[in-house]
Amino acid sequence: MQYLNNDQINELISISDVIETIEDFYVKGDQASVSVPERMHEEDGDNTILLMPSFFEDYYGTKLVGVAPGNPSLHKSTIHALMLLSNRQTMEPLAMMEAQELTALRTGALGGISMKYLSNEESSIVGIIGTGVQAFSHLQAACAVRPIKHVYVYSRSEENVKRYIEKVNRIFPELKINYATPIEVIERADIIITATSSKTPVLPEVPDLAGKHIVGCGSFRPFMQEISDYIFESIDEMYVDTMTALKESGDLIRAQERGLKQENVVTLEDLILNHEQFKSKKNELTVFKSVGMAVYDLVTAILIYEKLLKSDQSDGSSGR
Amino acid sequence: MQYLNNDQINELISISDVIETIEDFYVKGDQASVSVPERMHEEDGDNTILLMPSFFEDYYGTKLVGVAPGNPSLHKSTIHALMLLSNRQTMEPLAMMEAQELTALRTGALGGISMKYLSNEESSIVGIIGTGVQAFSHLQAACAVRPIKHVYVYSRSEENVKRYIEKVNRIFPELKINYATPIEVIERADIIITATSSKTPVLPEVPDLAGKHIVGCGSFRPFMQEISDYIFESIDEMYVDTMTALKESGDLIRAQERGLKQENVVTLEDLILNHEQFKSKKNELTVFKSVGMAVYDLVTAILIYEKLLKSDQSDGSSGR
Repeated sequence: MQYLNNDQINELISISDVIETIEDFYVKGDQASVSVPERMHEEDGDNTILLMPSFFEDYYGTKLVGVAPGNPSLHKSTIHALMLLSNRQTMEPLAMMEAQELTALRTGALGGISMKYLSNEESSIVGIIGTGVQAFSHLQAACAVRPIKHVYVYSRSEENVKRYIEKVNRIFPELKINYATPIEVIERADIIITATSSKTPVLPEVPDLAGKHIVGCGSFRPFMQEISDYIFESIDEMYVDTMTALKESGDLIRAQERGLKQENVVTLEDLILNHEQFKSKKNELTVFKSVGMAVYDLVTAILIYEKLLKSDQSDGSSGR
Repeated sequence: MQYLNNDQINELISISDVIETIEDFYVKGDQASVSVPERMHEEDGDNTILLMPSFFEDYYGTKLVGVAPGNPSLHKSTIHALMLLSNRQTMEPLAMMEAQELTALRTGALGGISMKYLSNEESSIVGIIGTGVQAFSHLQAACAVRPIKHVYVYSRSEENVKRYIEKVNRIFPELKINYATPIEVIERADIIITATSSKTPVLPEVPDLAGKHIVGCGSFRPFMQEISDYIFESIDEMYVDTMTALKESGDLIRAQERGLKQENVVTLEDLILNHEQFKSKKNELTVFKSVGMAVYDLVTAILIYEKLLKSDQSDGSSGR
């Protein structure tokens, strides 16, 4: 069985590969072969474990997530995650992967697909609230689909902003990046990304949002909200990765309270399969919200595994 | 993270180590720290997946089992299993282990503990019905606790008997081993092991069973039965690894139908903690039945991991 760490995964695949893979999943994938059992969720003291099995075509995957809220005080990351990829027919394990980068890339890719089909083609300015893993993966995604030149970033922690700017300077030296207030972020950016675990909205009110595209990836629990009420009042529809978001995300719960109807919620699948239909939306304010799904982890793990097999073949080695 | 395959596990630990570890679990272990959530069980076509998390002291373990009944026709083993061991406080993964040997050793060790406390001290003859993984691990266990000299083995498949005898000859060259009929197995042996997935009893009726100890490890589903009705009628009590066996094992279900009362079921924990009390049972017929439990996998994984750390220290390497 192969073991792949985060760095090896980053060497094998780019976010553009993941965007293509998730689109292909809906366009060419055998949807009848998809099976996603309800994930197992257990508390152990303050910690939480999640066991997330899923099946697609010839593969079976299980993502194992451990959440330890006490970790930051030990200078460790809160979430530890692994992905086991197996042969669906024989149940033989094929590869074990660290799943932090995998999760970041697939989540960024979901936002990237919404940007590709809903943001203005000329979008060159990204505004980001948050400086964590998803704040970075969504910037990668924006750069993969739009001609991004300038980034404005805000976080309550100056230290985190500094670290984020350093990372962006290192990995995207061609981008201009500056600290900005939330008002400046929303006023100046064409694409606005919220990637926080905030319980109160992080986007202040500004008069004109026409043509902007907002991607929310932080509010994944009912008690969280990143996107402000006035924004829900100025849109007729919302875009989500899956309908699960209607129950899991505080943003979607709030939007429904403010009048959003289920028939006006468009899924990523609709958007990908019928993107021509949504062309005109690029001049309007659009909001996409993702909460994630185990099968996105699985298709990303399959992509990584198949790339690995190809790279093993091409360099003549038999793996490690 | 460390990865350990079956061979590496066999190099690190013996079945005697596992017997000691499971006894220590009950004698010295912090039982209040044990948490075993109900395992997750999903069907995918003919295949089954099991996700079995458990917690004990400073560790969190998840056993991932895949059962593919079509595998034998592909010359592959039906069950694939992995064990992930993590730090319970931080959720950091510590080691991933192949779990076939781990499961075999811990299951054999359960039988070994019952042999240690319930079989006649001079038991020198083992009789085995079955030739699979557990038929071997239970022989290992018998040899670890009693002065075994002779083995009688029966299976419907001559081919399997031949392979089993070859393996025993290779690993236990000092043992005498012969093919025997089921009648010969039960008549001649001091310790009788049934390790089949039979739906009908495999032990024929013989007049005198006094002083013999029977270990059943095969009937782990309600529709399976290895031990014959007349045996249930000749005993007043039964020994089990955990009370779960009363619901999961066809043998125990049958024994209850034949009059076995719950208050006459003795658990492994009772047996270990109060073994002096059961001394006189060595001259009677006794029957032990195990169905397994996730925490036995966990304590075995902890044993392996801690042995690995010690061996890494003693050879000065930093692991692989």
